[in-house]
Amino acid sequence: MKEKVVRVFIAGIDGYLGWPLAQHLTAAGHQVAGADLYLRRKWVDEMGSWSAMPIRPMEERLAAFKERFGQELLFWEGDLQDYEFVERMMREFSPEAIVHLGECPSAPYSMVDVHHATWVQTNNITTTFNLLFAIRDIVPDAHLVKLGTMGEYGTPAVDIPEGFFDIEYRGRQDRLPFPRQAGSWYHWSKVHGSNNIMFATKIWGIRATDIMQGVVFGTQIDAMDGDPRLCTRLDFDQAFGTAINRFCCQAVIGHPVTPYGKGHQKRGFLPLRDSMQCLTLALENPPEPGGYRVFNQFEDVYDVTQLALRVQSVAGELGLPVEIRNLENPRQELEEHYFNPDHQHLLDLGYRPTHDMECELRIMLGDLIEQRDRIEAKRDALIPDVHWNGARSRVHFIESEIAASGLL
Amino acid sequence: MKEKVVRVFIAGIDGYLGWPLAQHLTAAGHQVAGADLYLRRKWVDEMGSWSAMPIRPMEERLAAFKERFGQELLFWEGDLQDYEFVERMMREFSPEAIVHLGECPSAPYSMVDVHHATWVQTNNITTTFNLLFAIRDIVPDAHLVKLGTMGEYGTPAVDIPEGFFDIEYRGRQDRLPFPRQAGSWYHWSKVHGSNNIMFATKIWGIRATDIMQGVVFGTQIDAMDGDPRLCTRLDFDQAFGTAINRFCCQAVIGHPVTPYGKGHQKRGFLPLRDSMQCLTLALENPPEPGGYRVFNQFEDVYDVTQLALRVQSVAGELGLPVEIRNLENPRQELEEHYFNPDHQHLLDLGYRPTHDMECELRIMLGDLIEQRDRIEAKRDALIPDVHWNGARSRVHFIESEIAASGLL
Repeated sequence: MKEKVVRVFIAGIDGYLGWPLAQHLTAAGHQVAGADLYLRRKWVDEMGSWSAMPIRPMEERLAAFKERFGQELLFWEGDLQDYEFVERMMREFSPEAIVHLGECPSAPYSMVDVHHATWVQTNNITTTFNLLFAIRDIVPDAHLVKLGTMGEYGTPAVDIPEGFFDIEYRGRQDRLPFPRQAGSWYHWSKVHGSNNIMFATKIWGIRATDIMQGVVFGTQIDAMDGDPRLCTRLDFDQAFGTAINRFCCQAVIGHPVTPYGKGHQKRGFLPLRDSMQCLTLALENPPEPGGYRVFNQFEDVYDVTQLALRVQSVAGELGLPVEIRNLENPRQELEEHYFNPDHQHLLDLGYRPTHDMECELRIMLGDLIEQRDRIEAKRDALIPDVHWNGARSRVHFIESEIAASGLL
Repeated sequence: MKEKVVRVFIAGIDGYLGWPLAQHLTAAGHQVAGADLYLRRKWVDEMGSWSAMPIRPMEERLAAFKERFGQELLFWEGDLQDYEFVERMMREFSPEAIVHLGECPSAPYSMVDVHHATWVQTNNITTTFNLLFAIRDIVPDAHLVKLGTMGEYGTPAVDIPEGFFDIEYRGRQDRLPFPRQAGSWYHWSKVHGSNNIMFATKIWGIRATDIMQGVVFGTQIDAMDGDPRLCTRLDFDQAFGTAINRFCCQAVIGHPVTPYGKGHQKRGFLPLRDSMQCLTLALENPPEPGGYRVFNQFEDVYDVTQLALRVQSVAGELGLPVEIRNLENPRQELEEHYFNPDHQHLLDLGYRPTHDMECELRIMLGDLIEQRDRIEAKRDALIPDVHWNGARSRVHFIESEIAASGLL
């Protein structure tokens, strides 16, 4: 048991991260409650897909949770854009910490059209405002843990610090927020959120940790204990499926693994179990009142083609032949660039990275092989058609350097 | 006549800047249209005030405009948050430039409560998105001139460049957006807008000028030619009245002139006629496609107490005795700080600053003396009660250094 039990409210508890986090925190002895409106299920449906891992309705999830952990999970169905709803939950549960996972997390979804762009940004701003004001007025000591993304920084030609940097400019010095250069309306919504939270901590003395999270991959955490009712969703469509998860789904149905463009985009990645470990560390070690911390949360930086090769290699061991074929890049982003972000804060708090991607890939591929039919049924969702320039047309395969080099 | 007539759409044409801009541009030979929903009139009413200068309903304004300039002003009443409305206007008018003044411009209004904070940010984001997408899809060559504010930068301890700066960090170099540290939800909404516009120019190749405008003051521009139906509004309430305008309104009714706190906040200021001149220069000199320019638009930097003393001095010449009394500061801001922003871009385009604040103050005070009764009737609106910490209570007078020093 923990020295100190933390009462944690999870906004977006039905999602990829929210549902395992509820279990991980409960297994660690903390007390959890949460809310959701099931929008993630609807968005993925709108993109013509579904979760590769079959997930249960919330009633079943809650029943399984009670069986496994011997306690009720307090749950509210409702819209985090509704301040009165948020206010009511804060009064009833009186959390010591709030994890904000109740935002739309997809870059391509935000790039569909003006209505999607507007909805993603206004939803993400409004839900964050509602949590910030509810903290100020109802639970002023509560610690807000906000999920941002490493994508807020973009890919500058200099090192990326954790949120702030000390600079000299024209002979004078200051400590300033590190400039953000996000790459989609979604990523910018997270920058807007970071800015709003930074300001709220400054004027109201509330405390917050802003997590610049890398790309998360994986199907399992230990707390699930193999119960299929406790498993979390795993998306593979163009909008909600992230690189490694999508690659693994492609591998198990014999679809080519598809880096975009030149495929040398570099990103920070971390397994789902590390994400849970890091969030728990942040929750168990809150900043002082008025403190605004930025954590760059990832294990290692990889080039997307390196990841494709790694998936190919592990899938090969499992008897799955995998072809790597690059797709036209529907995004506008640098495909070869400098990328050197710091990530010391979580290590200082005791984060022990898993450092075994092969093992994680083996578990994922094993889980996903059993879901072949579900992935096959939504095969079309694997190829993107949402372009950053506003066009909507399926991209084509392109000749890649890696193919040209004979590495395949 | 201009070498090149520009077809300019003004979003927010009924406002303090929009209405004179329509006249100034028309007088300069350009072709103008615009839209408004009269929200500014409603917000000021909500804050318990009204415009010191009596303004006419839009029908009368339009009739006077036609009389004065010999042409119709194309006008739509509607909500810029409605994309279909924006789309329809763009198709009908096909502008070559769009000036976005259709945002809520008040820091205190945005700080009232969660609903005001959310409305100001989502309105400002949504209206900007609607204009950006309409440019992309309907008038891709049109130049967006977006009104931001010098307040986006806050008050860093280093010089403030115009939007971007070249830095060296850990031995590597990059040109990065200058970090913003805004001071209210409203000011942050402008940062969010700047970020969204910067990104739109990058991915869509549209062109934009982002104006970091200083505080504007003044009642007149030449194009109005003394016609009371053509005059623009002038607010003096805590939320929509800005420093010099409010000080002048206080002076004419014998109310103390009221710097907040220590009163050494430094800001960039410019007369209304200079604002018109600068916006016209930006419109007549658009950037190349894909260009994103940031202009710091102000004439000079002043300390708020210097301004109060100047108002006192000019009012004194006009036989108006003025007392300066500092008020508790309802905001959270530095009251003594470094402030050295660049403002070269507009000078390079040919901006000739008025450089005669005394003359401008004399004109303003002359106009406002005639509106004494209107200002007196809303005297209560002069003292702020919206605090940055969420409290709502009228602030009190405080002992100021300037009073203590015997300068009064």
